Amino acid sequence: MNPLSIIKIGGNIIDDEAKLAAFLDAFAAVKGKKILVHGGGKLATKMADGLGIRQQLVDGRRITDAETLKIVTMVYAGTINKNIVALLQARGCNAMGLTGADGNAILAHKRGTASGNSATGQAIDYGYVGDVDSVDAAFLTSLLQQDKVLVFAPITHDGKGQLLNTNADTIAQELARGLSSSFETSLVYSFEKSGVLMNAEDESSVISRINPTYYEELKQQQVIFAGMIPKLDNAFAALKSGVGKVIIGRAEELQQLLAGGSGTTIVHD
Amino acid sequence: MNPLSIIKIGGNIIDDEAKLAAFLDAFAAVKGKKILVHGGGKLATKMADGLGIRQQLVDGRRITDAETLKIVTMVYAGTINKNIVALLQARGCNAMGLTGADGNAILAHKRGTASGNSATGQAIDYGYVGDVDSVDAAFLTSLLQQDKVLVFAPITHDGKGQLLNTNADTIAQELARGLSSSFETSLVYSFEKSGVLMNAEDESSVISRINPTYYEELKQQQVIFAGMIPKLDNAFAALKSGVGKVIIGRAEELQQLLAGGSGTTIVHD
Repeated sequence: MNPLSIIKIGGNIIDDEAKLAAFLDAFAAVKGKKILVHGGGKLATKMADGLGIRQQLVDGRRITDAETLKIVTMVYAGTINKNIVALLQARGCNAMGLTGADGNAILAHKRGTASGNSATGQAIDYGYVGDVDSVDAAFLTSLLQQDKVLVFAPITHDGKGQLLNTNADTIAQELARGLSSSFETSLVYSFEKSGVLMNAEDESSVISRINPTYYEELKQQQVIFAGMIPKLDNAFAALKSGVGKVIIGRAEELQQLLAGGSGTTIVHD
Repeated sequence: MNPLSIIKIGGNIIDDEAKLAAFLDAFAAVKGKKILVHGGGKLATKMADGLGIRQQLVDGRRITDAETLKIVTMVYAGTINKNIVALLQARGCNAMGLTGADGNAILAHKRGTASGNSATGQAIDYGYVGDVDSVDAAFLTSLLQQDKVLVFAPITHDGKGQLLNTNADTIAQELARGLSSSFETSLVYSFEKSGVLMNAEDESSVISRINPTYYEELKQQQVIFAGMIPKLDNAFAALKSGVGKVIIGRAEELQQLLAGGSGTTIVHD
């Protein structure tokens, strides 16, 4: 099978023009089929502030109300997506921007009202947030076979006319899962650290390889805790669904991450 | 050759939720390959006002400065394009949104500074406005062959990383020109009137068919004047470049326009 790299970049890269340019240079140089999934960054918040729209937070989570959905649609699918596409085109990379609505690439449903607000015990309605149902792998494969480089904004739809805000990490994982039967898939989650660290204070203490057994040990020793646990649980879930490997590290080190010379690689055994 | 309908809708449809829904019902029902090109509507102006960005006008023309380009990119390629795509998906129409930057579909260059401001004689810099250089017909044909319905926002790029604001009428015309060697193309320009009228005050006085000879007569008799002349000149230019027919009329009457039962059809002979 052909290799396919699916790379998710976070807001810290998108918010910084110089970091984004350096990342896109590295991304354009990646050989073979590839997909970029971008998050939002601070631009959406800035835009909402500029328009005087107050962000609703419940239990520290942002609620995607109708006004927020409008903002994220225009900022993620408009501003950020199209600028990244144009910047990649300038680097000789035939990029093409997509949301889940385009060509029905990613179908989702509005998340059901969750129970269990920790403070009040009341149910939480996250608003226009989408949980993914399916990825049209045949359609995306045909675009990749035509040497298009896909750039996904974290927006999906429900097939009934409603756009939905969907977590970019989840989109990357669902794309990797959906395309793993046609490609040998590597999934890269870039974040602000060099990888999973033995010592959270020491950027040089990157654990280069984690398999399920080692993961259990690291959790027991409390080397891995809090926010890293859902990230790694997702990584192992991706591997179980057929993804070849998952790499966690710094976007600026993309080439080294893909070559296994940097970051943390999550493996099945 | 397979027929292809390229339909341009203007701001008056986009700004009116009920009109847009009725138009999208009609568009979804059009048989065969099709492309929708949408303009902007008042949302971009509203958004600029909301963010306190002043629109620059020179000689009554809007100048696309850097701030305006940001607004039109997010509103046209984000809000409007993705909502239309989601609404078409809900109508069983496998729509896919594109700008000229996506897959390098439409390459343009920034318009050179025009000379001849009528009042001052000074040169006019229209800002980030793109004049079209080329359309990637092979790429668009392959998407159409995969039964995708293309929805174009009026944004192009220069291949050097710069997005550009491009007139939606021009995009529709360039797409029709570029695709006419592969398809039997009908180009529909929808606007606020029922077609080209014998009497501007009488919506029932639609001229159903205009060929070049009749066009000259209508101009001499001053039935056609002012703003209709560039529209019709463009229509005849499209016919000369291989487009099968050009139809001008009301978007709400789309089916009848395509069937030749409504609006004005511009023909070569």
